[in-house]
Amino acid sequence: MGAVVGIVANPVRADEPMSPRSPIEYRDAAPEVRAVFDDIKRTRQVDDVNNFWKYLAHDPRTLKRTWESVKEIMTAGALDALTKEMIYLAVSVTNGCAYCIASHNAAARKAGMTEAMFGELMAVVGMANETNRLANGYRVPVDPAFEA
Amino acid sequence: MGAVVGIVANPVRADEPMSPRSPIEYRDAAPEVRAVFDDIKRTRQVDDVNNFWKYLAHDPRTLKRTWESVKEIMTAGALDALTKEMIYLAVSVTNGCAYCIASHNAAARKAGMTEAMFGELMAVVGMANETNRLANGYRVPVDPAFEA
Amino acid sequence: MGAVVGIVANPVRADEPMSPRSPIEYRDAAPEVRAVFDDIKRTRQVDDVNNFWKYLAHDPRTLKRTWESVKEIMTAGALDALTKEMIYLAVSVTNGCAYCIASHNAAARKAGMTEAMFGELMAVVGMANETNRLANGYRVPVDPAFEA
Amino acid sequence: MGAVVGIVANPVRADEPMSPRSPIEYRDAAPEVRAVFDDIKRTRQVDDVNNFWKYLAHDPRTLKRTWESVKEIMTAGALDALTKEMIYLAVSVTNGCAYCIASHNAAARKAGMTEAMFGELMAVVGMANETNRLANGYRVPVDPAFEA
Amino acid sequence: MGAVVGIVANPVRADEPMSPRSPIEYRDAAPEVRAVFDDIKRTRQVDDVNNFWKYLAHDPRTLKRTWESVKEIMTAGALDALTKEMIYLAVSVTNGCAYCIASHNAAARKAGMTEAMFGELMAVVGMANETNRLANGYRVPVDPAFEA
Amino acid sequence: MGAVVGIVANPVRADEPMSPRSPIEYRDAAPEVRAVFDDIKRTRQVDDVNNFWKYLAHDPRTLKRTWESVKEIMTAGALDALTKEMIYLAVSVTNGCAYCIASHNAAARKAGMTEAMFGELMAVVGMANETNRLANGYRVPVDPAFEA
Repeated sequence: MGAVVGIVANPVRADEPMSPRSPIEYRDAAPEVRAVFDDIKRTRQVDDVNNFWKYLAHDPRTLKRTWESVKEIMTAGALDALTKEMIYLAVSVTNGCAYCIASHNAAARKAGMTEAMFGELMAVVGMANETNRLANGYRVPVDPAFEA
Repeated sequence: MGAVVGIVANPVRADEPMSPRSPIEYRDAAPEVRAVFDDIKRTRQVDDVNNFWKYLAHDPRTLKRTWESVKEIMTAGALDALTKEMIYLAVSVTNGCAYCIASHNAAARKAGMTEAMFGELMAVVGMANETNRLANGYRVPVDPAFEA
Repeated sequence: MGAVVGIVANPVRADEPMSPRSPIEYRDAAPEVRAVFDDIKRTRQVDDVNNFWKYLAHDPRTLKRTWESVKEIMTAGALDALTKEMIYLAVSVTNGCAYCIASHNAAARKAGMTEAMFGELMAVVGMANETNRLANGYRVPVDPAFEA
Repeated sequence: MGAVVGIVANPVRADEPMSPRSPIEYRDAAPEVRAVFDDIKRTRQVDDVNNFWKYLAHDPRTLKRTWESVKEIMTAGALDALTKEMIYLAVSVTNGCAYCIASHNAAARKAGMTEAMFGELMAVVGMANETNRLANGYRVPVDPAFEA
Repeated sequence: MGAVVGIVANPVRADEPMSPRSPIEYRDAAPEVRAVFDDIKRTRQVDDVNNFWKYLAHDPRTLKRTWESVKEIMTAGALDALTKEMIYLAVSVTNGCAYCIASHNAAARKAGMTEAMFGELMAVVGMANETNRLANGYRVPVDPAFEA
Repeated sequence: MGAVVGIVANPVRADEPMSPRSPIEYRDAAPEVRAVFDDIKRTRQVDDVNNFWKYLAHDPRTLKRTWESVKEIMTAGALDALTKEMIYLAVSVTNGCAYCIASHNAAARKAGMTEAMFGELMAVVGMANETNRLANGYRVPVDPAFEA
């Protein structure tokens, strides 16, 4: 880990800007990043990739592995693509991930989620989060019928 | 709040048992609890209710409100009952609620979830939990296309 | 689930706006939504409802059920209304729900929470979140005295 | 960080036991640990400390800092000790920390929490966890009245 | 989604056992599962794989993808393997995942984590979970110096 | 708890501003707050403290206790300061605390985290959050080797 430093080391002035990461656009991307961007655009038939991929591009290995996993997982199989997008949204809402809620809300709509389906999805997510805590708080033991 | 006490007040000996709650069985239940138990058994066509309801029975108002909400929410509507159970399971897995994972795994299977569907459900839940953190950590701003 | 589509289906251009939901104002609301809005305004003696209710209005059933549950739960009973608002805030802070922190901070202040009470509330919430992880990490088994 | 090793280094046989930590009892404790245990027993008027402290004793500095923080925070101030215990329990239930739920359930009861108060506490915790997700999912913006 | 059923459909008797999944042992595993198990055993130089992999074996695709990702990610690179295991443990402790805490505690020790390092790791994890909530609750805006 | 009020009590008009807290600057701070600010500036060799401390200044006891804990915990010991900052960041990313992600990203960079190290940190955090849920969902029991 090389020259590791203590809490008082490497001081920077409070007014010294620490630029956060910025998105990497196609025109500025390295070849291995462009290859992933191209595959995303081809697979999803879009003209540009979302910010998520432009930020992951800072780490081409994570970009590649994540896209390949997403592509494998989100393709229709035993579950259709819409159901998968709604499950994705349910998790993102539970975790409170603002970006993921916005992007998977859009993805679920694109896959066919109607306003009525969204309303029921949210009702289930809310109820599950409530009963999860009721089960925790009352310390409910798992029924033997679920364990045998 | 009546006789409220400080941190050193009301001492109990470390070896004095503090019995946790126990399930309330039908035979010991008050009439308003029995009414809810009866409705659960009738609706679900089961001989007995799960531990969750037997523990909530300590608070008949919460028991009644929770059951009525669950019954309203989990009935097939714009989403079928199986999809709802899988969303419930996805939330419970994300929160790590052991009881809820066990009971809704069983409920989802009863509603038709095959092993292949469970496998894909878990793959989506895992991936969503991963990308939620990648989006957080890279501080990805929401794309204008999701906001306009 | 009708015409369910795959990951490559239903393409939209990346620059095609996906309008997020907007609040439903009283003047645009359906009768069953207005009935709930009226009850909120009457119960809370306010001139307008918060954004939370205007968004839930997209799903009138969830709006109605949620308001009726909140009204039942948040009314003073064995716990006074201020204590309930502080517990609500403690949960919202733990979950990191920005909207809920803002609204229940306001609600708790309205119910009588002073700055000193808020300070102690936050200290407890912070400490609980810390010791929850110490207990997890050290894998502390539950004392027999809490189980007997 | 000394002799840091790769993923294949330091192999142990799968059947080689990796003993988890065990509680440190008073009789085996170092003087600085005994000093903290003595203060806990005196402050809480108990004959022995809970498992939580016996496990933290593996790191005397964390033991001391945590106990001193808990003692400072949990003493009655602008909030009474019972309210503080219930807030602690609300957080622990939300996080699903089994040890903390068990121990703070006991602590809250000792401080005066009745079964009716527990029931209302759980109802609020459940509702807050539900509405936190509804606010997330509907992407409700904070009302100007909460920000001005 | 085939024969999707409603909440009252497919009733099972409450006393009908719903066997949970069981681990898939090497001797019973399909060839593609054995291939992954062999690679885990070779890479980690162990005689048998952990339960985690034996359960994932119910879904060979997830087993394969997860192992390949773990192998790629957990190998020493810009961060050494010990640091990676401690970060893994920090996340698992924060999420309260009992299995992951147990297994990555063991993995981190195997990679060289001493009791003193574990103690400091836990202190940081506890403190971060505390200050995360203080920042949430006080609604602290991000300093311009972190954004410019 | 003094004059505790019900849900309909203490009405304020919806358009009545409820000012959120604002940062307390050095020039406006009480002596005990200034003493902490001075120690932070001296220890970290910065000209001003971050917003986090300016908001905690609303509760001088929490400000003092939190700073003293952070100073004790984050100083290099068995773990170097950089490793500690990365663990802090891993927890903050898992919890989705926007302020903490921004500030500890900056702190970790200041302590020597390169872009490559950040990339691997994020990969581990993402993977841990994924496998935590796979372990939960498959209900994987802890291996005897981790318990003996």
